[in-house]
This record gives sequence, C-alpha cells and structure tokens, in this order.
Amino acid sequence: MTETGSADRVAAGFAGMWSDLAPVGRDGQSGGYRRFAWSDVDHELREWFADQAARRWLDLTEDRVGNQWAWWGDPDAAVAAGRPGIVTGSHLDSVPDGGAFDGPLGIVSAFAALDLLRANDIVPNRPIGIANFVDEEGARFGVALAGSRLLTGIMAPERTHALTDDDGTTWADAFAATGRDGAAIGADPETVRRIGTYLELHVEQGKALAHLDAPVAIGTDIWPHGRWRIDLPGEANHAGTTTMADRHDAMLTLAGVVQAARTAALTRGCVATIGKVRLTPGGVNAIPSHATAWLDARGADPDAVRSVVADLAALAATTGGEVTEESWTPVTPFTPALVSRLHEVLGGTPLLGTGAGHDAGVFAQAGIPSAMLFVRNPTGVSHSPAEWADQADCLAGVTALATALTDLSQEA
Amino acid sequence: MTETGSADRVAAGFAGMWSDLAPVGRDGQSGGYRRFAWSDVDHELREWFADQAARRWLDLTEDRVGNQWAWWGDPDAAVAAGRPGIVTGSHLDSVPDGGAFDGPLGIVSAFAALDLLRANDIVPNRPIGIANFVDEEGARFGVALAGSRLLTGIMAPERTHALTDDDGTTWADAFAATGRDGAAIGADPETVRRIGTYLELHVEQGKALAHLDAPVAIGTDIWPHGRWRIDLPGEANHAGTTTMADRHDAMLTLAGVVQAARTAALTRGCVATIGKVRLTPGGVNAIPSHATAWLDARGADPDAVRSVVADLAALAATTGGEVTEESWTPVTPFTPALVSRLHEVLGGTPLLGTGAGHDAGVFAQAGIPSAMLFVRNPTGVSHSPAEWADQADCLAGVTALATALTDLSQEA
Repeated sequence: MTETGSADRVAAGFAGMWSDLAPVGRDGQSGGYRRFAWSDVDHELREWFADQAARRWLDLTEDRVGNQWAWWGDPDAAVAAGRPGIVTGSHLDSVPDGGAFDGPLGIVSAFAALDLLRANDIVPNRPIGIANFVDEEGARFGVALAGSRLLTGIMAPERTHALTDDDGTTWADAFAATGRDGAAIGADPETVRRIGTYLELHVEQGKALAHLDAPVAIGTDIWPHGRWRIDLPGEANHAGTTTMADRHDAMLTLAGVVQAARTAALTRGCVATIGKVRLTPGGVNAIPSHATAWLDARGADPDAVRSVVADLAALAATTGGEVTEESWTPVTPFTPALVSRLHEVLGGTPLLGTGAGHDAGVFAQAGIPSAMLFVRNPTGVSHSPAEWADQADCLAGVTALATALTDLSQEA
Repeated sequence: MTETGSADRVAAGFAGMWSDLAPVGRDGQSGGYRRFAWSDVDHELREWFADQAARRWLDLTEDRVGNQWAWWGDPDAAVAAGRPGIVTGSHLDSVPDGGAFDGPLGIVSAFAALDLLRANDIVPNRPIGIANFVDEEGARFGVALAGSRLLTGIMAPERTHALTDDDGTTWADAFAATGRDGAAIGADPETVRRIGTYLELHVEQGKALAHLDAPVAIGTDIWPHGRWRIDLPGEANHAGTTTMADRHDAMLTLAGVVQAARTAALTRGCVATIGKVRLTPGGVNAIPSHATAWLDARGADPDAVRSVVADLAALAATTGGEVTEESWTPVTPFTPALVSRLHEVLGGTPLLGTGAGHDAGVFAQAGIPSAMLFVRNPTGVSHSPAEWADQADCLAGVTALATALTDLSQEA
C-alpha cells in the first residue's frame, strides 16, 4: 500500500524514534534496559510519548491509572455515534536488563503506521488511538499487566496498596508520588468504551517466524500457562564424611527433575522452565536436606501442559516430594472474527499462538475485540539485551499494522 | 579396665551430664541445636563446663581466646618438669539445627573418662586437661575452628575484627561484649605449651564404623579437601516463548554437572557435594542465563580429589563454563607415633581417615602430637537433629578414651 517516497519517509521517522529511545534507561554495564513503572526513566519515556503525540497533532489523554492515549479523531463522539475507535499500542517499560524491542516496537510502529496512513492520505472513518500501557512487565511491583488490568477492572484498585517494590513503596504511593491522584486509581469505563478494537504489534519472543521464514504473524491466542512449586526432600548431612552411597541429596533429585522437565516438555510439545531454585540449608559443606524449585509450563494444549506437570509430580513422588500448583491461567483466545479479518486483509501472513502474556490478552478477556501482530525475532532471544529484530522486518510490521488500521478504521 | 560397679557409676554420670545439656540451645521447631559462639546459649554451656570442673575439683582456666581448660594436676609444673599434660576435649557449639553429639560427646566423654580413671584409682604421671574450644563450627562468623586457630596463632587476631555475624557484629566485639579483654585476643603460647598430647573423641560423621561393625575407631588423618566455584553460562530468554530446542538453559547444564559430580566422586573414591546454587536472573519465568554452584570435594587421596575437579572442569568447559578453586587444604595427618601407640593400646580398634575438620587437625598442624577417637554413628547422619549414637557405643568410647588417657598419662 505504500509508495517509495512515503515508505522512505516512514522508515526515516521510525529510525529517528528508535534513536530517541535507545539511551533512555539503558544500563551501561549490561547494555539492557531498566525501565520500571513510575520511575524517573518511566517519566522520561512518557514525556517522549507526549512529544510524539504533539508532533502529530494527536489529542493526549491519560486515564485514571496513568495509561497514555494519543487520539486521531474524537473518541467520545465516535462512541456516541456507535463507532468506537481502533486502538493500537503497547508498553514502554521493561524487565530488568530487558531488550529494546519488547514493548517499544509496538508504540514506535503505531506512530510510524499512523504516519504511513497520513502519507497515503487515508481518512479513517473511526478515530485511531495509540496507547502506552503502564507497568506491563510488572518488574517493579511483581505483577504484570497492571495498567490494563486496573483499567478494565480485572485487578481491584485495593491491590495497588498491597503491591510493593524492593524498597517497600506501594504501587499506589509510587503513582501518587508522581503527582497523580491516588484516590482515582481503578476501573475506567469511560476510557474502556472508546476501545472498539485493540490491535497490538509486538516483537516475537521465540523463533517461530524465523523457522517459517516470514517477517510478520497474526496472533491467535495466548497459551494456557501455570506455575508450580516442586518440593523435594533430602537428608541433612556432613559433606565431608558421608559416603556417596549413604546420601539422600535433594540437589541430586532436583537435577533429575530438571532433566525430566525438559524431556516431558519435548514429549508433550510444551515449554517448561525451572528458573528459580532454593536449597536448604544452602551451605557449601552441607548436603541439601530440601530443594524447592519453581516450574513455569505453557503450551498450546492445556492437557499437554497438565501432562508435563503430572510427569514431574509422579517423579517427585518417587522420592517423597510433591508438586503444588501456584497459578493456572487457561487459554486466552484473541477475537476469532478479528483474527479472520486480519488474515484476509494481510494475505499470506501466518497465524501464531504465543506463550507470553500481553495487554491484548487482558482486553480480549474484558470482551473487547483484540488481536496481535508479531514481528520476526531472528534469534528468538527476548527479555535480554540481545533481543533483536531486523529493521526490514520492523518496517514490514509497520506496513502490516498500517494495512490493518486502514481496513479496520474504514469500517462504517 | 573397668569393674562393674565403677562402670555403672560412670554410665550414670554420663547419662546425667547428657540430660543436663539436652535442653540447652535446642530449637523447639527443628529439634536441632543452635549453639553459637558468644551467645547467651554459649554462656550457659560454659557455665555448665565450669560446674562440671568444680564438681571434680579440677582447676578451671581460660586462655586469651576464651577456650576453657579444666586441669587435674598442675600443667605449668609439668611443663617445667618436661612432662607436659595430656589434653582431651572438643567443643560445645553447633551448626544451625545441628545434632546433640557433634562436639558435646567429646567433652562429656572426657569428664566420664576422668571419672573412670578415678574410680579405678589411676594416678597419672602427667596432668590431664579437659578443654572446651570456642567456635569450632564457625556457624556465627563463618570461619570454623576459630578457637584453636587463634590460640595456636594459625589465625591472626586481626581477623576477629573482620569476621562478622548476620547482624554485622564482629567476632572481637562479640567476645568483648561478654566482658572479656578484646585486646588480649591472639596466640597464647603459655597455654599451648601445656598441651603435651591432644586426643579428641568425636562422634563419627559417616557410616564407616557401622559398615565395619565396630563401636570405636582411631583417627589417622583429615582428608585433603577443597572448595570450587562452578560457573555455567546460559542465555537469558523468555520462559513462555522460547522453544525447548532454542534454549541454552544454565539450570539444565547444572543438572548435568550435579550428576557428573556424583559419578566422578563414586569413580574416584571421593565425596563431592553441591550444596549451594545461585541462578541468574532467578525469576520463575526466566530461563537462567547463568548458574553458579559451589563444589565441596574431599577424599583420602588428593590426586583423586583433583581428578573429580578435573572431570567437572572438562564438562563445564564443553558449555563455555569454568571451575575456579576457592580453597584447598592438603591432608592433615595425625601424629603417626601417637596413632601407632593408640592402635597398640586399643587392640583391635580400626583406623579411620575423616573428611571433616577438627581442632585436633589444628593442633597436629601446630606440631602438637594429636589424634582422635571416633564413636560409631549408626545412621551416619551428622549436622542434623537426627544425628545419633547408641549409649553403649558412647560408653565404649569413654572406656577407650580412659584406656588411652591412662596409658598416655602414665608415661614418665
């Protein structure tokens, strides 16, 4: 849909926005980003967002939770007319030492796609909104997707008084410390009803598109996923005087469980991760008397995920251990009619489920037609300074997003 | 060497002392002991030691470091006469949630053995001393054998200003807080020269005697041992979106290393323990980008221990990891002439090397004739509330110790 001249201008605009953001919140040691909710770095990112909105004559608003919205067209008039807007966006915060793409790519692409629509003289029939959702990663307060979950009422506002960062500051206090009205935190139906459709572009966090040799995919659903605690008993004993034959070493049992988790995930077509471990007593010269490990397991098929957990529970039981569920989230499908429409408009674009949580999942859960676009990640690395996407693929994402926005916003 | 009447009285005395100590510093939750240097519990244990000395009309002294000594006979007159005393003893402190036997068995047995000598009208030619060494386990300040190492000058007194507990209190400040003279901490040659021979009785911390079906063994040496840090790289990545095939998970590598450590130890006839592990970043939904584990390895043959480490270093290298030595202590032989003499006097008592450190090793290192006796531990469990020795075996230990003390103290 683009001509060479406008494509070049959009590419230059994309590169300019990318350069603006590159130094903000970057850690000199790790090379990764430390962009946490309601920090000074967060404020700088929000100022950048406001500036981008102003440059494009978009109307900047902020909802009760602090999510930012930049509107092209009047969203309330559109609601009154029964034609609520099309929203696209993502988040600017990061995990500790995160990459440059997870979040910002969706926002930069949203502005670039809007530029492309304008360069091509598209006049939307519905308003188009660009959103920056607060605290998507949950790095500071420990709960992901806080901005969209508070907005939609899926998270109760009372929780913002209980969630604390490492210094003991609550979410609500950090919010109020920026000069915002803490008493107003909560569901914001006036804002929510402006969202007729939500479409989020995001860097892929795996290598599926690399394997498919395609630059962009349409998201179909967020996989079911859960967390389990695995407790494995051992016998406390002296590291120097207990023969190998006489040991009951919880760390050795755990080693077997870690390998079994991998085997089970491969067998069942899921992913399984043990990323956190605690040994008791944890001394260099003490045979571990207990090992606790946390399992994160996800997959397209909930029964397959359950089978991975059952495999590990059976193994743990043979040594007197047990597996306890800490959380379980069923599959979150994106809106099927919207996915079909995107698949038609973006002919040849593959469909892809994902194992990661996103604000788009929250909006789908809240009943708002929602979907996603994913941009190829050649190495599949994410939540790491090494996270990457080629510029050509990013621009293919911008084009796909612009094509989708054109189609959706033309609707009467 | 004992008659029935005196044996019964000694058994009753042993049981009485054991009952006295049973409640002191016992944690109601774990059932284990928390007896840490210079704590209130430690003070109570020292008061008990002083009381036991007084009941037997022994002369109680304390050296510059706070180790307690109870003398039967004048140790300085003996030094002047060129016949320095025979010392036996152990320690009353414990590891966190330690057992009742590790340490106290040596001191209770020492008092009981002295009772047996007196019951049998033995008149020693040399003074006999019973010692309670401070902070053998190093549980509070992190360094084991502090009392004997400071006393002999193997540890510099300056270190007591650097070693801190969890609250930041230094060894020296904790010492001074009990009313002792912090400026006096340091090597105490006047005390050291009183020790003509040191013989320590200790519960075995493995199952060798259970396998040999013998109640008591004579220690021959403390095995060479060391600590190594194992660093294993991985690749940070998202736990939900990275396929199992695309992962480089440091925890998975570590699982293989833990199993390889066991195999290597079994193959080489050593013991190897991985009791402390740190994963980076350590989040439930993050594939570990780095794993650090600490290896404790010991064995009778230093080359075999080195081979275990080399096996693991080779394995770690295949994944870009490395193994770094943090400490290495060569074999500490007990005094061969003393071991031979005990072996002769205690006919049929097996000889045993040990993988644990003891104050007797410090005195051997300081050039003082030193050896040990070990009492059977039917389960081999140590450093645990489950640590155990049967009373019959404890009394066999008392008898062996009394026999050895009789022989050694008769020497002209």
